[in-house]
Amino acid sequence: MISVDEATRLVASTVQPLPSEYLSLPLAAGRILREDLRADRDFPPFNRVAMDGMALRYAALAAGQTEFRIESTQFAGQPPVPAQDAAAAVEIMTGAALPSNLDTVIRYEDLTFRTDDAGQRWGTVQVPAPHAGHNVHTQAADRHRGDLLVPAGTRLEPAEMAVAATVGAATVAVARRPRVAVVSTGDELVPITEQPQAHQIRRSNALMLQAAAWQAGAEAEAFHFDDDPAALRQGLPALLTGFDAVVLSGGVSKGKADFLPETLRVLGVEQLFHEVGQRPGKPFWFGRQSGGAVVFALPGNPVSTFVNFYRYARPWLLAAQQPEGTNFGSVALGGPVPAVLTEDVVFKPRITHFKLVSLGPGPDGRLLATPERAGGSGDMASLLTSAGFLELPPEQELFPAGTVLRVWRFRQ
Amino acid sequence: MISVDEATRLVASTVQPLPSEYLSLPLAAGRILREDLRADRDFPPFNRVAMDGMALRYAALAAGQTEFRIESTQFAGQPPVPAQDAAAAVEIMTGAALPSNLDTVIRYEDLTFRTDDAGQRWGTVQVPAPHAGHNVHTQAADRHRGDLLVPAGTRLEPAEMAVAATVGAATVAVARRPRVAVVSTGDELVPITEQPQAHQIRRSNALMLQAAAWQAGAEAEAFHFDDDPAALRQGLPALLTGFDAVVLSGGVSKGKADFLPETLRVLGVEQLFHEVGQRPGKPFWFGRQSGGAVVFALPGNPVSTFVNFYRYARPWLLAAQQPEGTNFGSVALGGPVPAVLTEDVVFKPRITHFKLVSLGPGPDGRLLATPERAGGSGDMASLLTSAGFLELPPEQELFPAGTVLRVWRFRQ
Repeated sequence: MISVDEATRLVASTVQPLPSEYLSLPLAAGRILREDLRADRDFPPFNRVAMDGMALRYAALAAGQTEFRIESTQFAGQPPVPAQDAAAAVEIMTGAALPSNLDTVIRYEDLTFRTDDAGQRWGTVQVPAPHAGHNVHTQAADRHRGDLLVPAGTRLEPAEMAVAATVGAATVAVARRPRVAVVSTGDELVPITEQPQAHQIRRSNALMLQAAAWQAGAEAEAFHFDDDPAALRQGLPALLTGFDAVVLSGGVSKGKADFLPETLRVLGVEQLFHEVGQRPGKPFWFGRQSGGAVVFALPGNPVSTFVNFYRYARPWLLAAQQPEGTNFGSVALGGPVPAVLTEDVVFKPRITHFKLVSLGPGPDGRLLATPERAGGSGDMASLLTSAGFLELPPEQELFPAGTVLRVWRFRQ
Repeated sequence: MISVDEATRLVASTVQPLPSEYLSLPLAAGRILREDLRADRDFPPFNRVAMDGMALRYAALAAGQTEFRIESTQFAGQPPVPAQDAAAAVEIMTGAALPSNLDTVIRYEDLTFRTDDAGQRWGTVQVPAPHAGHNVHTQAADRHRGDLLVPAGTRLEPAEMAVAATVGAATVAVARRPRVAVVSTGDELVPITEQPQAHQIRRSNALMLQAAAWQAGAEAEAFHFDDDPAALRQGLPALLTGFDAVVLSGGVSKGKADFLPETLRVLGVEQLFHEVGQRPGKPFWFGRQSGGAVVFALPGNPVSTFVNFYRYARPWLLAAQQPEGTNFGSVALGGPVPAVLTEDVVFKPRITHFKLVSLGPGPDGRLLATPERAGGSGDMASLLTSAGFLELPPEQELFPAGTVLRVWRFRQ
């Protein structure tokens, strides 16, 4: 039996960056970028008018001029035309490129207008600008051409999509989605469309794992095998070569129908560990097929399956979408955040305890973790009212209310 | 100009629950449930063996018996067979239904076995069970048949998927996805595949809004119109009747090309408000088409568009997927959480200020909000380094470091 830290280290050691693929930008939403996005132009690319109003020379204003002859009107999208007359102005709209010999914009709210007998329009400044450049978003004020805007490894969220569009990244390199096979085993399981007999239950772990894999950005297909070594030996090889990760539930404990560790050995999957000093989820088996999938063989009790997935498999799936060398289990990659325990918790065994908790913000901005009353690793319903699990380290027995601990969130 | 609170109230007043649709369970992952899920059987549905080992009568153990004749072996999925002999035991596997006349399970780790000359297998208890029912997950220990497990309005996350599968909800009622038209306007905008001229920029808001709508569970189609009243009058009606929400960006301020408020009026869209006491995003126009879409006409500066979407449109999209009467803007529906300001912030105008911040957990479990150096509402790049925005109320000018404020997160 190895420690949680050692298990984490071994799982992390198997992460290989997935290949990249090229997608048109709209299809890449939510995916992990695999190239740096740089500014193809300055941000903004020109002296951009920030308010609707009148553009003029600040020097004229500073010299006391308040009324300006309006020489032309310029809309956003029109090429800028310099004012011919140093004392004149251009009526101008937000988003327009400021003409090169003007430097300041007075917004409509601070102007009045009149049209003289000759039909000439004049604007009078009621509230003078405090400085040159007022209401002008100066070229390169935010970023310079060539600046790194979005580094490889970033998830393409709405803000990144906007920036990618702005720099003309019509096609982007992103990580291919991890391909995951989720596999339930157990002769007591019937399909969800069937009425179980008294001693049977419906299959639920595979769908749970599938949904959790989807949330981690993966494609996931669900499979089921009976507790039959021959069926496993026949069915597993295609999964071990056709997927990046195989996530099994059940069949890894000490029972007489727990054929998976032996079957995986026979199939040539290298065992990296079996049994981790943790509750729930101790019988977790982990290995890898040379040139093929990593194998997360999780114990089948639903809470064990669930906690092991979020503690080990989800960080693996997120890390595999990153470029080389990204920190496994960081917050951005599904890792834990600090939370404050609201009640005393006692756990005596010298192993790591994953304690289901509900989470909510306290009025002082602290994230509060309240232990759930849970009936053990078979109590699937306890997951409904929980939002994460605390990781209680093995060397401590009493965790008093107020202790700050690491919590792995499975809900946001 | 109305207050942010009043604008919020008016936006909330237009929420109508979207119709439900029926999906097969795997397709419903991530969707909002529109029916209650109840336990069709007890949880667990039988006295479920929780460890691999040997099932026996506790009374025999309590009377001093330590060695038990193994009458049969029972695997998960097999109908339970009561032990014939009161002093005998059944070797039994995790997940099996406990035979009716047995009550306690001793796990393999606490047993030794021998086989006698007649070929009969015997198990000897090395570590006695502390009480009857040990290692048995008792029928109905977690939930009773008929109990409400997952109420309507819950998002189908992995735990809910598992429970839905367990109760045989092979088809579930979920909210139809909101249908959103996102529309950019502005003559300065060129498609992302084109090289802009010096005074042009590429279209980015529509894609940003589309990605943000997807994150809120919506379908979203992107459109673009030039700043041309005729084009708007021709193109908008189909959107106003064909979508649940139309989210526009640009064309709502005081400029001479800001045709949207007038065009929407001409098209019969009821204006609920125009201009909100907030920065950025003051020119926000909001209305609804009778029997048609609600219209979020957002100012076109990218930060204004973005902040208004997350402050008003995202909560609307999430609330519309809920059953009737759910609390608009609650945390579960995209609403704000408390965070602690790490630096002094001063904002003098008597309007609400949305302040971009980065967010991170402090070592004491508090969520820390650090103001971003941002160049105003045109500084799209400032969104890249931010994770949310604080809502600074209008009645206050100085917000000292340490103040707890509400933050609207746009990244998790």
